[in-house]
Amino acid sequence: MPRVFRHRLRVRYGECDPQGVVFNANYLAYFDVILTEFWREAIGDYMAMIEEHGADMVVAESRIGFRSPAAFDDELDFELRVARLGTTALTCHIDARVGDRLVIEGEMRHVFIDPATKGKRPMPDEIRSGLDPYVAPELQTAAG
Amino acid sequence: MPRVFRHRLRVRYGECDPQGVVFNANYLAYFDVILTEFWREAIGDYMAMIEEHGADMVVAESRIGFRSPAAFDDELDFELRVARLGTTALTCHIDARVGDRLVIEGEMRHVFIDPATKGKRPMPDEIRSGLDPYVAPELQTAAG
Amino acid sequence: MPRVFRHRLRVRYGECDPQGVVFNANYLAYFDVILTEFWREAIGDYMAMIEEHGADMVVAESRIGFRSPAAFDDELDFELRVARLGTTALTCHIDARVGDRLVIEGEMRHVFIDPATKGKRPMPDEIRSGLDPYVAPELQTAAG
Amino acid sequence: MPRVFRHRLRVRYGECDPQGVVFNANYLAYFDVILTEFWREAIGDYMAMIEEHGADMVVAESRIGFRSPAAFDDELDFELRVARLGTTALTCHIDARVGDRLVIEGEMRHVFIDPATKGKRPMPDEIRSGLDPYVAPELQTAAG
Repeated sequence: MPRVFRHRLRVRYGECDPQGVVFNANYLAYFDVILTEFWREAIGDYMAMIEEHGADMVVAESRIGFRSPAAFDDELDFELRVARLGTTALTCHIDARVGDRLVIEGEMRHVFIDPATKGKRPMPDEIRSGLDPYVAPELQTAAG
Repeated sequence: MPRVFRHRLRVRYGECDPQGVVFNANYLAYFDVILTEFWREAIGDYMAMIEEHGADMVVAESRIGFRSPAAFDDELDFELRVARLGTTALTCHIDARVGDRLVIEGEMRHVFIDPATKGKRPMPDEIRSGLDPYVAPELQTAAG
Repeated sequence: MPRVFRHRLRVRYGECDPQGVVFNANYLAYFDVILTEFWREAIGDYMAMIEEHGADMVVAESRIGFRSPAAFDDELDFELRVARLGTTALTCHIDARVGDRLVIEGEMRHVFIDPATKGKRPMPDEIRSGLDPYVAPELQTAAG
Repeated sequence: MPRVFRHRLRVRYGECDPQGVVFNANYLAYFDVILTEFWREAIGDYMAMIEEHGADMVVAESRIGFRSPAAFDDELDFELRVARLGTTALTCHIDARVGDRLVIEGEMRHVFIDPATKGKRPMPDEIRSGLDPYVAPELQTAAG
């Protein structure tokens, strides 16, 4: 069974807009927090990776489907699964629920780069083996 | 020739992250500003639409491809084209350049709702005719 | 002994600027989170207060002294003390440390209003008695 | 007559909170934009200063008085005056109006540092002479 990374965030007042719900751009900011915490569980300290492995990541693509709204003080339960582990790229599928209700689902694709040259580089093996348990086979086709 | 909506935003210091470039979530916030200004040009005041037409919009889907970074004080030149005018939905294609260099390209799909019931409703005719000149035929297939 | 409210927040990547430290405006956003959580401990649900007591709060004044920087992934330990409980106003003193190092200290003054008229109104008695244990006598003079 | 720096910002939807008004922390973000634009008028490019003069600035203190709310799409007219030019510190007084109505007034105190050591250093003379025309004598006492 593939692992699923789970993390909860409580919606802050300043993250909501005049419609009383989370402003759409803040979901991308949440995704970044989820990825940071996922990294801590799967790999360890993000900054240490850059120094030890000579590898950094940049965002290549994001996609969000907005299914229902979340409001101030709601607790968002995020789930992250690895949709695709490529040679130089990592695609994560992330969704969030308030209770049983789906709020958003989306994807972030990151590319590994050499911090010095900013050029693409293969994902370090140790990182690949840390991410591998989270690969969800059913998402592979969709992520292409 | 279809119309293209153009708008320039200067990158604010607080919108940039420790890599020295615009934090990815802020591009969705920029998209929202671009849509506000596009609306002003194509339709008029957004709030007036809600009251006059009994129609509001909610974001249904967003997608961003990150092509190259933008830094503090850069001037981002945005272009918006209507990729699809459906019965209840509007898909806009947005890209941004610094000079000639493509920084991002993406899409936002909005759905028209009845502000009272929050249910989907057809796009009002006057709004459709305001948006129609911006429909870019070459984007139709991609947006599906 | 007056009570002190304590809460920890971890610095998010997108909250940091190109100097690699928390962008100054985000401390005001943190203060808002701290006040929300303080309210939950001292009074209960903020939204319930508005409905039950016919009282809302608006920010009247903020002040922050920036003592040292905080960086991505740092854990900020906030402490909140009530500096002054007036008839219609509440002044909270908030500071934050990373370990033993003082990062910021500041104040937020809120005024109680009637949500209908938006005019000032006295603080409800039940709220006053919830806040009273957190009044720090040594801060009274400074807050004036 | 001392010079006053003026700049207009239009309130973005995502900058407003569920009360329908600008979320308080965003005023500090606006202050940062105003200071950037003030710098462009008074001194020139901020990044060039760092390289040419070996001087950077960090925020030491901020204060905001919230007088009345501003809403989505409002145009905020900012005015900046130099309240105090010290040896190592610069205090700017900033206020904002919507039409004739005062929305906020506040202050930002910055300290000049050596970018290498992060220690305080005197303000470079060329910068002082660029800022001098904006010193407002009537604010001197208040800023202390």
